[in-house]
Amino acid sequence: MIDTRPIGMFDSGVGGLTVLKEVRKQNPKENIIYLGDTKRFPYGSKSKESIIELTKKGIDFLLEKNVKAIVIACGTATSQALEEMQKQYPLPIIGIMDSTVQYIKKKKTLRQIGVIATTGTIRSKGWENKLHRQIPEANILNKACPLLAPMAEEGWTENKIAKLTVQEYLKEFQNIDCLILGCTHYPLFKKCIQEELGEKVEIINTGEKLAKDMKKILKTQQIQNESNHQGNYEIYLTDTETNFISVASKLLKDKEIEQKIKKADLE
Amino acid sequence: MIDTRPIGMFDSGVGGLTVLKEVRKQNPKENIIYLGDTKRFPYGSKSKESIIELTKKGIDFLLEKNVKAIVIACGTATSQALEEMQKQYPLPIIGIMDSTVQYIKKKKTLRQIGVIATTGTIRSKGWENKLHRQIPEANILNKACPLLAPMAEEGWTENKIAKLTVQEYLKEFQNIDCLILGCTHYPLFKKCIQEELGEKVEIINTGEKLAKDMKKILKTQQIQNESNHQGNYEIYLTDTETNFISVASKLLKDKEIEQKIKKADLE
Repeated sequence: MIDTRPIGMFDSGVGGLTVLKEVRKQNPKENIIYLGDTKRFPYGSKSKESIIELTKKGIDFLLEKNVKAIVIACGTATSQALEEMQKQYPLPIIGIMDSTVQYIKKKKTLRQIGVIATTGTIRSKGWENKLHRQIPEANILNKACPLLAPMAEEGWTENKIAKLTVQEYLKEFQNIDCLILGCTHYPLFKKCIQEELGEKVEIINTGEKLAKDMKKILKTQQIQNESNHQGNYEIYLTDTETNFISVASKLLKDKEIEQKIKKADLE
Repeated sequence: MIDTRPIGMFDSGVGGLTVLKEVRKQNPKENIIYLGDTKRFPYGSKSKESIIELTKKGIDFLLEKNVKAIVIACGTATSQALEEMQKQYPLPIIGIMDSTVQYIKKKKTLRQIGVIATTGTIRSKGWENKLHRQIPEANILNKACPLLAPMAEEGWTENKIAKLTVQEYLKEFQNIDCLILGCTHYPLFKKCIQEELGEKVEIINTGEKLAKDMKKILKTQQIQNESNHQGNYEIYLTDTETNFISVASKLLKDKEIEQKIKKADLE
């Protein structure tokens, strides 16, 4: 099948570019349109009602770009708005939770589960409820880490402050088998986190798990792009006068990223 | 004069409550209506265009509450939107910059000036331009500190991470006479900052300077409230399901604060 329509990706900012990176790695021929709602970033401290409203606007924008499937690449929006979006829209919409939950479910050595995410995601109990429903025997330990996302945007992911902050946030995570990185910025702290928890703990990058599932979905629904060309990507941001561009170029290691960024108006 | 109409205060979140505290200290009989746009917090990384649009909506809301004067208690909104608002509206509107600039201008020992604020405020050069215009002989050193506001919201204002973060941000501020706290969250770090810079550097709380000017303006315009009653205050937030309420109660040391918080819709 050669379906050249793009995959749409929605995020509250540029954190989801860690997911875009994984999706491209697993699906190199697919075109991608990424929408980051940088004007209203961060979603972490917003109400469920606000998050649903904003996510809906984002999806409507992507649909106008003729996308064939949508990734909600934001932990907060996935936990608060995904189910509602799947009810309202006919195309495949996947968030960053289900693939990870299914992965853990299958791997029976992972039953002491840690979750770190933004305040909104943790407060919504999205991860906790989903994990409990799928893996009733699991023990789940949650921790909101509201400083990690802004710290990643500052570029502090391996310095002493990052280490102490990770240490402070993870001090109760003594006996876990795995740690879910429930916010897309957190893979940037992987080194610090692995050092703090030791090699026996599996650190789970949700974007990587999602990217593998996206590949399967495209194939099952026969909407994959099996052309001979490398896929391309475009980034739309609702507010482009921000330091997100420098963060984005660090995340994607693409020096020409500025030419791929356009302004989106969701009003 | 007994003008019981309230003073309106606008902020992007709850940081401006440090300003509310100072305004009440200097103007104890005045009633205050505070509007925090928590749904869109933080403004620090938004464009000028977005900030003007959001500030206008906030002022329109306060005008419907019959306010007699308005304080823009947000560093970012002051630097990006104050002039435009003063052009568009007939009532007194003051931001958190002018009072501080005038104070420094008069005190001739303060000519090596440090400014710390959010990324948006520093990028706008609001402080730099205003200080240069009023005090051409001053040397100004700027630093954006995007992590301090979220760190204050986490309650980390005196721990080791706060100290290291302050140290990292202030390492270039070796020879200043005074430091302007250009974001309303920053007075919470006063102890850390004073320790880092030493007693010879004057730390300037912009809310305190503004509160004294507000007193003068109310008197000059003959709109002060000289009744015999203690003034009251109400807080409106655009998103109330957040951890801002716990931050607000810490800031104001008012245990009954929840009863004073209402939801505002600016759409």
